[in-house]
Amino acid sequence: MNPGKTLGSSSISFSRPVYIESAASVVGKKEGEGPLKKKFDKICRDPMFGMTTWEEAESSLQKETASLAIQKAGLKTQDIRMVFAGDLLAQTIASSFGIADMGLPYYGLYGACSTMGEALSLGSMAAAAGYGEHILCATSSHFATAEKEFRYPLSYGNQRPLSATWTVTGSGACIISSLPPREKRLSHGQCKDGCAVITGITTGRIVDFGFRDSLNMGGCMAPAACDTICRNLRDFHRTVSDYDVIVTGDLGEVGQKILLELLSREGFDAASVHQDCGLLIYDNQTQDTHSGGSGCGCSAAVLAAHILPEIASGNWKRVLFVPTGAMLSKVSYNEGASVPGIAHGIVMEHKDFPCRKSDGCTDV
Amino acid sequence: MNPGKTLGSSSISFSRPVYIESAASVVGKKEGEGPLKKKFDKICRDPMFGMTTWEEAESSLQKETASLAIQKAGLKTQDIRMVFAGDLLAQTIASSFGIADMGLPYYGLYGACSTMGEALSLGSMAAAAGYGEHILCATSSHFATAEKEFRYPLSYGNQRPLSATWTVTGSGACIISSLPPREKRLSHGQCKDGCAVITGITTGRIVDFGFRDSLNMGGCMAPAACDTICRNLRDFHRTVSDYDVIVTGDLGEVGQKILLELLSREGFDAASVHQDCGLLIYDNQTQDTHSGGSGCGCSAAVLAAHILPEIASGNWKRVLFVPTGAMLSKVSYNEGASVPGIAHGIVMEHKDFPCRKSDGCTDV
Repeated sequence: MNPGKTLGSSSISFSRPVYIESAASVVGKKEGEGPLKKKFDKICRDPMFGMTTWEEAESSLQKETASLAIQKAGLKTQDIRMVFAGDLLAQTIASSFGIADMGLPYYGLYGACSTMGEALSLGSMAAAAGYGEHILCATSSHFATAEKEFRYPLSYGNQRPLSATWTVTGSGACIISSLPPREKRLSHGQCKDGCAVITGITTGRIVDFGFRDSLNMGGCMAPAACDTICRNLRDFHRTVSDYDVIVTGDLGEVGQKILLELLSREGFDAASVHQDCGLLIYDNQTQDTHSGGSGCGCSAAVLAAHILPEIASGNWKRVLFVPTGAMLSKVSYNEGASVPGIAHGIVMEHKDFPCRKSDGCTDV
Repeated sequence: MNPGKTLGSSSISFSRPVYIESAASVVGKKEGEGPLKKKFDKICRDPMFGMTTWEEAESSLQKETASLAIQKAGLKTQDIRMVFAGDLLAQTIASSFGIADMGLPYYGLYGACSTMGEALSLGSMAAAAGYGEHILCATSSHFATAEKEFRYPLSYGNQRPLSATWTVTGSGACIISSLPPREKRLSHGQCKDGCAVITGITTGRIVDFGFRDSLNMGGCMAPAACDTICRNLRDFHRTVSDYDVIVTGDLGEVGQKILLELLSREGFDAASVHQDCGLLIYDNQTQDTHSGGSGCGCSAAVLAAHILPEIASGNWKRVLFVPTGAMLSKVSYNEGASVPGIAHGIVMEHKDFPCRKSDGCTDV
């Protein structure tokens, strides 16, 4: 049996579901004061995460999140067969100096804020093909490293337009596997929850509408999100209502409006099912976050803290997770280049695992 | 049948070989004056590649090389199912603005100068699993973008220590497939050549020996190359002599000495089979390149121009290709962090395709 069936020009439907064994999220103080505050695994009030530079802080954050995901899956570091990780910084140093020093086989990724989607896309392809039993997918962002990398020194105190998003200080990590977590989880008493599985992917393409405003990332990324969602629906022969939720990464208020308009031009009315991680993580009215949250850590932390538990519990039966990324650097921006976007689509579904005493479960 | 068998902690032996359908190389003037000058597909004397900034020049170079690889495989752009690409620049903009705008499903990678190894590693996993018939793996580097990104303005005219390497202005691209190229190549009259196949991989790990000298990249990367080569030999139960050549990416003279010393401490005498792309591409004596060539484009261009033809012709029966990368950014360097290394191992073998008239070949 082939591990997956290719659909259309850019989707894969896996022959057997890829299981999400565990997920972990660690965020900063501001995120810990937002609407999802009770759902994160850890909230760290020290923005330096115990380190001396912002970059070391982000590395520390990503490493802690990855370690927590490994621990929650009941595994040890050396049980992880391969790692897919990346971040927003030049030469992805948050990852290189973070989880990468766990000594694990490592594939470094750059997908801007779509990195969790890229990691899950590649990780699920590898898991479905039997290339590794436990695969770690992780990413992070940090408000202070991102401002330093892409915009102005923090002490400059620049004014932010209302279209600007606020980079999330946070990290999300998942362990995925071709084997069901139930057997492994019996001893943890979590088997009655059911779990979330990845059943398909739609690989992102870089879409360039010619936007040049790095303080309106939602606008830059919305065309790519539209492109991926449309290809997913067509490749899988689905309509918008086949998904309980279509959740983008970090379009924010401005990007959401553009996405819904672009989708309606393609004949899809997604207003009732669309959510955006950037709009879930902050209360824009009270937290001064303008258009919403952004950064690799935004979709990754919301996935781990909110989306996966909703799927595992069965509240959501099928979700299209579409992290969105803006492909710019300060050099490309300063040289006047446009800001193209990319979005990777991951189809996630609920899978039931009814507890049976005959299987050794002690919870029934 | 599973697409691959996992070996040891970090290797995969593919159940069926992954075919290299085509490979292309485009380099700059200096590389075109070196020992491999007759083997590159194109030598461009204009360092701007017809563009107005160094970054656009590198994007143009990478796109041209990718297009040439697609053309040499007898394919059209839309035949490519997915792309694995990356480069050295912050936020990998050479790739984002280069081949990525071909509108193809795209996975952006960051593996520093090991990127061609990372791309072939992920690409061959995807091809072996049947996730796409034609997969493009590409990378590039440019002397001027790399100096700007990591070191000094060119006009500053800094002195280079003898341990420094010279970043190659060049790009290499391959099309890989789960199907033999012979059938497709019959009409091109190339079937009698045999071809190069990928039969296994060893995923790189980040290895940090604590070196901090960004002008001695060979020294920083040699421990990672040693780690990957040793794991490959142990995982596949092979000795050094099972390979005709073990070819690293860009260790240069200084890194080669360290690698051979480290390997001998592990019980492997690789002096007679080791080659380094950074030592093959320039004549260090006459070209003022000190320790040798480096950059993503170094191993990628030498692979396409020299290594793959040697394998396809049968001169080399089995080769371990080990592109090496140094995981630093100017921020990590300026903050005093070490320069860890990574190396991805790709096992390449010769595969014969004797021509048969009964198959419709017109060459016999």
